[in-house]
Amino acid sequence: MAGLQPDRFRVGRIAVIAGNGALPEQVVSVLQSRGRDHRIVAIKGEASETTRQAAAVELGWGEIGRLYRFLERSGCDEILLIGGISQRPDLRSFVGDFGTLRRLPKILKALIGGDDSLLKKVIGLFETEGYSVVGIKDVASELLAEAGTMGRHQPSDSNLRDLRLALAATQKLGELDIGQAAVAIGGRVVALEGAEGTDAMLERCQQLRDTGRVKGRTPAGVLVKSAKPTQDLRVDLPAIGPRTVDLAHKAGLAGVAVHAGNALVSERDLTLSKANELGLFIYGFDLSSDI
Amino acid sequence: MAGLQPDRFRVGRIAVIAGNGALPEQVVSVLQSRGRDHRIVAIKGEASETTRQAAAVELGWGEIGRLYRFLERSGCDEILLIGGISQRPDLRSFVGDFGTLRRLPKILKALIGGDDSLLKKVIGLFETEGYSVVGIKDVASELLAEAGTMGRHQPSDSNLRDLRLALAATQKLGELDIGQAAVAIGGRVVALEGAEGTDAMLERCQQLRDTGRVKGRTPAGVLVKSAKPTQDLRVDLPAIGPRTVDLAHKAGLAGVAVHAGNALVSERDLTLSKANELGLFIYGFDLSSDI
Repeated sequence: MAGLQPDRFRVGRIAVIAGNGALPEQVVSVLQSRGRDHRIVAIKGEASETTRQAAAVELGWGEIGRLYRFLERSGCDEILLIGGISQRPDLRSFVGDFGTLRRLPKILKALIGGDDSLLKKVIGLFETEGYSVVGIKDVASELLAEAGTMGRHQPSDSNLRDLRLALAATQKLGELDIGQAAVAIGGRVVALEGAEGTDAMLERCQQLRDTGRVKGRTPAGVLVKSAKPTQDLRVDLPAIGPRTVDLAHKAGLAGVAVHAGNALVSERDLTLSKANELGLFIYGFDLSSDI
Repeated sequence: MAGLQPDRFRVGRIAVIAGNGALPEQVVSVLQSRGRDHRIVAIKGEASETTRQAAAVELGWGEIGRLYRFLERSGCDEILLIGGISQRPDLRSFVGDFGTLRRLPKILKALIGGDDSLLKKVIGLFETEGYSVVGIKDVASELLAEAGTMGRHQPSDSNLRDLRLALAATQKLGELDIGQAAVAIGGRVVALEGAEGTDAMLERCQQLRDTGRVKGRTPAGVLVKSAKPTQDLRVDLPAIGPRTVDLAHKAGLAGVAVHAGNALVSERDLTLSKANELGLFIYGFDLSSDI
């Protein structure tokens, strides 16, 4: 096995396994600017058109065998999993090639759940075959949120109170491996993210406003996205982007807060200029100090 | 103050302060069948037509002064708060009579939040004026869920696993005084109740199914409603009814579980016959024993 480990002092070739959204493109552009050798694997039905065009190969869930063959032949020894998955694959998706079939018992075990999260198991599946899974922190840290106010607007004291409440909620959720996001408005947590995702949760907050279930002046309230305390920070980092800002604005929120260093800001310039224009703050909190 | 306390061996006259839904009527009908002396106070904009017609008085949020005068004149010394509140009152709702104005500092303090829940503070507001607040357990315990299977269908082992997961989630939520309900499907918590309420959360679960964000065969999954660990069990008990069963069915769930003895089953006969017909189990869990 030792021969399969990348040399400590050698920078390996990285396979970017790309889901949906704009993040894969942004990561690739950082890798390019750093001159980092890489290959793109587009996930079928998920990767954007741009990503697919830049990809060396496009693979579906049932093509795990082909994936491993590609990784081996292309000489990739590191893997970065980036982008969203809009459709959680079902069992039928894995009726695929022989390499998939051979690994099916492990894959099934991962899909069925248990103590560890699905993604931790996916990482484990790669690692047992000798690949090393890296995170954004390792290869494109400029995409991460920094501590403090990132745009022009500052959170008020009441915003910080909502931030603390929503953060406490995301941490409880995180302990159970449920969601990464929560919204607090006026001293009360009003929405928690489940399987619907952050965008749908923000749309719900707008409805809560529209139907009068949540009252009070706008803007008020904060969206918090925070990594699960138990999660592997190499994958599925909380991410915000221009759409998050738009939806938070429509929900009447005062701002958005993420865990500094452990959250992605997608399309950073656009995200911050939108927030500046719409009057929202974008804040990176530091869990090691008081908020 | 001692003169205002109801005599330990005397059964007092009870004021039923009625919000929306069918539960106030059901409570009143239990009180009638027990020959228990009572008066109904309908909350304006919330109480049903039936409740309003049976009510001695109908009062809005700004009429706290009138409420206390009514309680005193009608000789009520106990209070039961029952039924839903669809619209959380805002500050303007309390611009009312002089009795409201006089109590406004306390009311504001209650509305603004803090460590205790709003309802605990409402109870406190009544108790400081010498009234005793009673719960369903004290006056209409036949409306509470009992332990075990209440209808014809039994939860399967995988249903019980989902039940435990969703229950763990509601308990985490409860610690933060957020929601009372969660849904787990196929070993995964997919929805958590915030300010939207249980019905809207179940509709969301149906959407998660329809859009493919939650996959797998139906029926599968469990709705759990559980009192918050910190809540006062005299008010705001989790409740299920025929509509809960309908929506759980539409969401493809296998059943509904509530905390035995600490949850209300509204329109019990209709709820159970609907569940029997649609194939859903209705289960009362006991936190003191293994589920």
